Amino acid sequence: MAKKLTTREEDYSKWYNELVIRADLAENSGVRGCMVIKPYGYAIWERMQAELDRMFKETGHQNAYFPLFIPKSYFSKEASHVDGFAKECAVVTHYRLKNAEDGSGIIVDPEAKLEEELIVRPTSETIIWDTYRKWIQSYRDLPLLINQWANVVRWEMRTRLFLRTAEFLWQEGHTAHATKEEAIAEAEQMMNVYSDFAENFMAIPVVKGTKTESERFAGALETYCIEALMQDGKALQAGTSHFLGQNFAKAFDVKFAAKDGALDYVWATSWGVSTRLVGALIMTHSDDNGLVLPPNLAPDQVVIVPIYRSEEELKAVSEVANDLMKQLRSKGLRVKFDNRDTQKPGWKFNEYELKGVPVRIAIGPKDIEKGTVELARRDTLTKEFVAKHDVVDKVISLMAEIQNNLFEKALTYRIEHTTEVSSYDEFKEVLESKGGFISAYWDGTPETEEKIKNETKATIRCIPLDAQDESGNCMVTGKAGARKVLFAKAY
Amino acid sequence: MAKKLTTREEDYSKWYNELVIRADLAENSGVRGCMVIKPYGYAIWERMQAELDRMFKETGHQNAYFPLFIPKSYFSKEASHVDGFAKECAVVTHYRLKNAEDGSGIIVDPEAKLEEELIVRPTSETIIWDTYRKWIQSYRDLPLLINQWANVVRWEMRTRLFLRTAEFLWQEGHTAHATKEEAIAEAEQMMNVYSDFAENFMAIPVVKGTKTESERFAGALETYCIEALMQDGKALQAGTSHFLGQNFAKAFDVKFAAKDGALDYVWATSWGVSTRLVGALIMTHSDDNGLVLPPNLAPDQVVIVPIYRSEEELKAVSEVANDLMKQLRSKGLRVKFDNRDTQKPGWKFNEYELKGVPVRIAIGPKDIEKGTVELARRDTLTKEFVAKHDVVDKVISLMAEIQNNLFEKALTYRIEHTTEVSSYDEFKEVLESKGGFISAYWDGTPETEEKIKNETKATIRCIPLDAQDESGNCMVTGKAGARKVLFAKAY
Repeated sequence: MAKKLTTREEDYSKWYNELVIRADLAENSGVRGCMVIKPYGYAIWERMQAELDRMFKETGHQNAYFPLFIPKSYFSKEASHVDGFAKECAVVTHYRLKNAEDGSGIIVDPEAKLEEELIVRPTSETIIWDTYRKWIQSYRDLPLLINQWANVVRWEMRTRLFLRTAEFLWQEGHTAHATKEEAIAEAEQMMNVYSDFAENFMAIPVVKGTKTESERFAGALETYCIEALMQDGKALQAGTSHFLGQNFAKAFDVKFAAKDGALDYVWATSWGVSTRLVGALIMTHSDDNGLVLPPNLAPDQVVIVPIYRSEEELKAVSEVANDLMKQLRSKGLRVKFDNRDTQKPGWKFNEYELKGVPVRIAIGPKDIEKGTVELARRDTLTKEFVAKHDVVDKVISLMAEIQNNLFEKALTYRIEHTTEVSSYDEFKEVLESKGGFISAYWDGTPETEEKIKNETKATIRCIPLDAQDESGNCMVTGKAGARKVLFAKAY
Repeated sequence: MAKKLTTREEDYSKWYNELVIRADLAENSGVRGCMVIKPYGYAIWERMQAELDRMFKETGHQNAYFPLFIPKSYFSKEASHVDGFAKECAVVTHYRLKNAEDGSGIIVDPEAKLEEELIVRPTSETIIWDTYRKWIQSYRDLPLLINQWANVVRWEMRTRLFLRTAEFLWQEGHTAHATKEEAIAEAEQMMNVYSDFAENFMAIPVVKGTKTESERFAGALETYCIEALMQDGKALQAGTSHFLGQNFAKAFDVKFAAKDGALDYVWATSWGVSTRLVGALIMTHSDDNGLVLPPNLAPDQVVIVPIYRSEEELKAVSEVANDLMKQLRSKGLRVKFDNRDTQKPGWKFNEYELKGVPVRIAIGPKDIEKGTVELARRDTLTKEFVAKHDVVDKVISLMAEIQNNLFEKALTYRIEHTTEVSSYDEFKEVLESKGGFISAYWDGTPETEEKIKNETKATIRCIPLDAQDESGNCMVTGKAGARKVLFAKAY
């Protein structure tokens, strides 16, 4: 039997790294900070993409594709944007290799130097707004609701599979509007789409809110976010949606003629989620036995394992299994029948437990005799025998039950790990002893925010939407009229 | 009314460029050689992706994702591969920008130079085979059937929208096998998948064949291809599938233990199609009025245009249109009801003709009176009145009819533009007067192939699969035992 995973209790971070590798989700590549997403990990991302893409299209967005490279000069046009991304970007300077004349191998051809360096996109606001200038003339061209599925590169120094990698996959929405109100409504709508997706598909409860000025996206006037809590009490930002005001329209001179003929700059939003979500999914639900996947995103929702000792038994079992698979698939379920003869049933049980398949069905000769199958739930690690004619209905109801159970479990964890504090001492005590979200009053100054961050490593995750009007005394400075915000240590 | 397109007769190349822009498919970006794929063009690519992805999965392949960057040293490991791609690649040399100390703007930070340069992938054999070394130990790990959807970069000097761009989108399959026979069977299978896709979805007849040695992929022992003929008599390579032998396994030291324990290098294939297919689709079917799309790939298969002069008329027409849209959608058709009040019906008719929507339905007050609708076919530019209760059946049968008609039309064109010649003089005469595919005997030497290419600009597109056993006298050198091959000028 394979070596057990490090437990979460022993070392949460090690547990995560081992799980990602052992469950065949991803691995590090020979390129610093870049991961290889393996087929099983990619299948989860594909399920996420399919649902998000559908949700984007249902809210009126279309996909398009913009260049990977951004001329260096584009970056300089939006001041805060260049500050935010220039320190960690991959720069293309040449367009040719050649054989070294001394025979020492291939080298960069010094004669093939680009006149202007190109940046591998860390995000696409600049190249997209440079394009929008050509697409937008009048109010008739608005709103422009575009999304792009793409790879982006940010030269992170400390990387972790899925959570922080130099290259990652994401989607980035970029919309243009005639009015400020409409752009804000769009940014809020997309935060809600992300929140719906997180809660209904990923089974991850999230807090919706806005970022403080210092935590905002480079170039945004407001950043909306969804924040989730992992099992180690650390927060993870799962998606952001930015109201960009007229900053990019001004930087790239994108104006439109209103109905009355008046010219004005266009209002913008951008919003994105990335393969980081796969990391959040893993960390929220998985246990010491391996991955636990919510049925709505599991590449295989059900796996059937045959138990047999002879060819004859395999034949009889396969007949029942194939018939069951057909019935389950006809109900829209993703089902796999693992009849490989290179591995034993025990090995397969471990494998699918490790890979988090929500329901496992085992069928052996005794089951055929009794007209039953053995059904195992991954989330509760419980087993039961179910009469053959009840299996399909049972599995269908289990899908909803497991999905719901995972969400409720994560929600309970979050509720138990969200603490309201009134003093800074209490804040520090809770942060050390328990972690999680800490709700407290903050005086609204970057100085206090910075002080807390430096002293405790906790950051303001968001100003929750449902606490925007609350006020009290700042836990650090005691100032009145302070805002209620959510702190946590974060990924 | 908008300016007419340049006709194909006047200037085929100009017609293509105008059409791509006017039909909102793509445009050049501010980055040399890189295009922006606009929503309508991207929607066509998405339809292609969906069908191909389904076909890949049905043949047992899984998707994965490998890094965008390839360390320079990986390139040197397969000699012919580096020769094939080194001359046109984007090279990342630095990982940071900074503000110039003299305030002149942002510059590349000379202190952030990479130890080893990274190449933006022009294709992923090297990075993938470096990874496969870790994934493959025994025959149990084979076959490994992986596909990747990705962007790649080749620094082309002369670019054209969709047909040849510095960055393009594609899929690249990379498979590993225990035997030579199995790898060859895989390469052939994927050529057949591409051919099925081209003929049944794109409505483009293709010739299947193998490439001559000089036209092979850098690192391949055999390149299978599908070749299509465009309306200007030039050929277009629409997809390739490579049998790579053990070249990459040897370069990256990928061995497996067979059942008997013997160690051997793994056998490989790779295969790909790209956004170039969108260019092929445009060029094969479109006419002087605009795009013509086959129903199986059209983002909108049917568009409904309301005709009205009053709010009251619009209301009555909309009721009929919405009902019809609902019925058509319930049959799985992609239908759009264009009820924008910012544009007149005539403008809309032109627009959807330009955009190649297969069927247009117009509904006005007179139609409601008579219980009919006006139905227009894009491929034949014909119109007819159809009784309301027959419309759904009629549209469904039209989808198959139009799809079939486009294929037959393209096939007829290809048959009429495929000429067998027996002498080099005849070859040159046909090439100049008529173009198209020219079938002729070639003595199998790179010298003769090169001579023909230099003198006529025609290349050997392929050795057709159905002519692999034919032999005769070379049209240039007269040598006996020459092979029958297909020549053409090509994109």
